[in-house]
Parts: sequence; C-alpha cells; structure tokens
Amino acid sequence: MKVLIVHAHPEPLSFCGALFETAIETLEAAGHTVMTSDLYAMGFDPVSDRRNFHTQHHPTYLRLQQEERYAARRDSFTAEIDGEMAKLEEAELLILLFPLWWFGLPAILKGWVDRVFAMGRIYEEGQLYQHGRFAKRRALLCVTTGADEPAYQPEGLHGDIHAILRPIERGILQCVGYQVLAPALFHGPEGAELVVREHWLDEWAARLTTIERESPIEVGRYR
Amino acid sequence: MKVLIVHAHPEPLSFCGALFETAIETLEAAGHTVMTSDLYAMGFDPVSDRRNFHTQHHPTYLRLQQEERYAARRDSFTAEIDGEMAKLEEAELLILLFPLWWFGLPAILKGWVDRVFAMGRIYEEGQLYQHGRFAKRRALLCVTTGADEPAYQPEGLHGDIHAILRPIERGILQCVGYQVLAPALFHGPEGAELVVREHWLDEWAARLTTIERESPIEVGRYR
Repeated sequence: MKVLIVHAHPEPLSFCGALFETAIETLEAAGHTVMTSDLYAMGFDPVSDRRNFHTQHHPTYLRLQQEERYAARRDSFTAEIDGEMAKLEEAELLILLFPLWWFGLPAILKGWVDRVFAMGRIYEEGQLYQHGRFAKRRALLCVTTGADEPAYQPEGLHGDIHAILRPIERGILQCVGYQVLAPALFHGPEGAELVVREHWLDEWAARLTTIERESPIEVGRYR
Repeated sequence: MKVLIVHAHPEPLSFCGALFETAIETLEAAGHTVMTSDLYAMGFDPVSDRRNFHTQHHPTYLRLQQEERYAARRDSFTAEIDGEMAKLEEAELLILLFPLWWFGLPAILKGWVDRVFAMGRIYEEGQLYQHGRFAKRRALLCVTTGADEPAYQPEGLHGDIHAILRPIERGILQCVGYQVLAPALFHGPEGAELVVREHWLDEWAARLTTIERESPIEVGRYR
C-alpha cells in the first residue's frame, strides 16, 4: 500500500514528531511505501493565490477555482504544488498528522489543502463525496490536543472532539471522496508522563500494522 | 465604537472585497473608528513558529504556548504580530471577513489566529469562554460561499452552515470570550446577478449601521 503522511508540527522533537517517525518506521517495516510531506521542514508556503500557477487565465481578476481548472488542463501548477498533488494521487492511504490549534488545522496544513486540493485535478464540481475522485481510498486524522480527554467530551469544557473534527473529516476528506478511518487522538501529550507517551506510541504502531484491514467510520453530518 | 475588520480574500475586486469596502465606508460614516487587516494586501505570513518572537525561552525545544507566555512577559513578539495584537486589544467589535474554503478559514486567516491569539496576552489557561479576556466585546463572521444556499441547509449537500462555522465561532471567538453576533452569509456571489450582489451590499450596510444594538446569538455546543 502507498501511504502519504502530511505532518504539521514546528518542533521535530514534539510528540507529533514522534508519532510521525513511528508511523514511517512501522509502515515501512510492514512493507508499505511511505511518502511524506513534513510541512514545517519543507518550509511549505500555505498562502493560496496566483503563486499556485505558472499560467494566468484571467490576468485582471483572480477566481481561484477557474485558474485551478485552467492550470489543470495545461499542467501549469508550480512545482511545489504539482509535487504534492502527485503524492496525493499516488497515495491509497492519507494521514494528516497535526496538533489541534484553535479547533482546526494549523495554518500550514490548512493551506496545503487550500492549494493542493485544486478544482479540475483533485475534485470536480458535481463529483463530490461518494462521487469524489478518491472514493476508493482511505484517510485518517492523527491529532494531538493541548487539553485533556475530559475537555473533549460532549459535556466537557470544549465539547465533542468528533464534532470539532467533522469539518475536516467531512468537509475536506469525505468531500473529495475519501473513506475516513477513526481518528487517532492523543490528548495532552505535553503534560503526560514519558511512560504514557511511550505506551501511546506503541498503540499507534500496533494500529498501523493492521490499518489495511480497518473499516471506515460514520463521520456524520453537521447538526 | 472601535472596529477591527480582518479581511482574507486574494482578489480585491471580489465580492468579499466589496463587502470589506462597504463595511469600512458604512462604519466610518456612522462615526465608528475602523481598523483593518487586509491580510493578502499585507502579505501576512500565516506560519506560526519561532518567527513570532524576538526571544527564545527554550532554544532547543519549541513549545509554542510557553514561548508565547515568555514573549508576553517580555513584550517580545515581532512587530508584525505585536501590531495585530494591539489592534485586537483596541477593538470592541471584531469582524472576520473571508470566503469559506474547505469548510474553514483560508490559511492566511487561520494563521492570523494561530499567531496573534497568543497565550499570556490574548488568553490564559483557565480563563476561557465566559471568563475570557474579551468577554465584554463582540465579534462576527462575514462569509461568502461557493455553493448556493440550499447546499448549506441541514439536509443539503454540505450540511448546516451554522454547524460548519461552530469550530470558528465557539472554538476561536467564544473561546477567548467574545459574544458572537449572527454570521453574515452570502451564498454563491460568483454566480449571482449584479443586482443581487448590490442588494446584498445594501443589506450588509444597513445591518452595520445598527450593529451596536445587536444581541449575541446562541452558538451552541459541538454535538
């Protein structure tokens, strides 16, 4: 299986960094092909505008989706974006690995989606969700949080983590067709004991060795 | 009243751009003081890491929140970030004005939140939501979408727009204390007739003339 891991933490020695290294090692040891996009290490630029393209369809008025379709027909995305698209097109499993910042993706990862998920190449109007291009592929979120697990229960301080993640799981992953696997959630690793963190890494590795056989979850609709 | 409008569209001639111009003109004509952050025009860098600070608390291991608290005590945020914080601290009303991209904020705006909403200055652990620093202030989202209004109904293609916006309204705005006003929603302006767009701009202007008297909405919890 070909796997793409997109990692978005600024500190390589962080628990996110350890989850990233563990995933690479475990999946490669299991015989899978692992591609990576370590966005901070790459210095990835997350701002979407004309910098995405070599071409200009309408030089005086920027409509990003129209420029994306134009660039898709002419194969004129810039090398940085085209390279990320090529990895995404290869990958049978996509893992987005990030710390939850303000109940969403860190900007560097949100911008990876904004720029790479281009109309005419990654998705088409009228071909979304079960009709999406990646309908036979799988994806999952691997997430660390700052607060502890009780804070992310439906009646906790912040509320249900699954509802918090829904705009990402449904609005990004399912929207282009992916079947979504259960998120891997690690609450408050900054404050956790080393032995707990090591246990979590072992659990993550164990899960990845059998991930090919997992069934997708029901993400649910926005309510 | 002092108002901060943070605008995140790459095309100044877009409908978002027109909403931005209309808001500035209307609020100033009503006697309010308007501050703006036009993120694309500013070339705002949305990537959060050590670039936020002049100081380094832990040079060998980056914990962003700890570095934020350290920088807050020493007043050592870089000028770009400090300037945005100063505007936010002045503003009695905050307007985030953006196109909905992948069911969330464009990366340039998400990164404005990631970098500017710093622990020790904008929020403190244990002082969130109704105990947040901005508990006496108000904020609202002004949002354009690509799809039309039926797509954003609870049973529509994408689902309930209010649930889609909840991680922003609750997880960012309410989390630091803001009372949230009803979002201003404009569905599919790209495909709308000019007369419709002009009507929407008139409605937006009319709302802004009395916005000081509006009551906050119930954003709801994640479900």
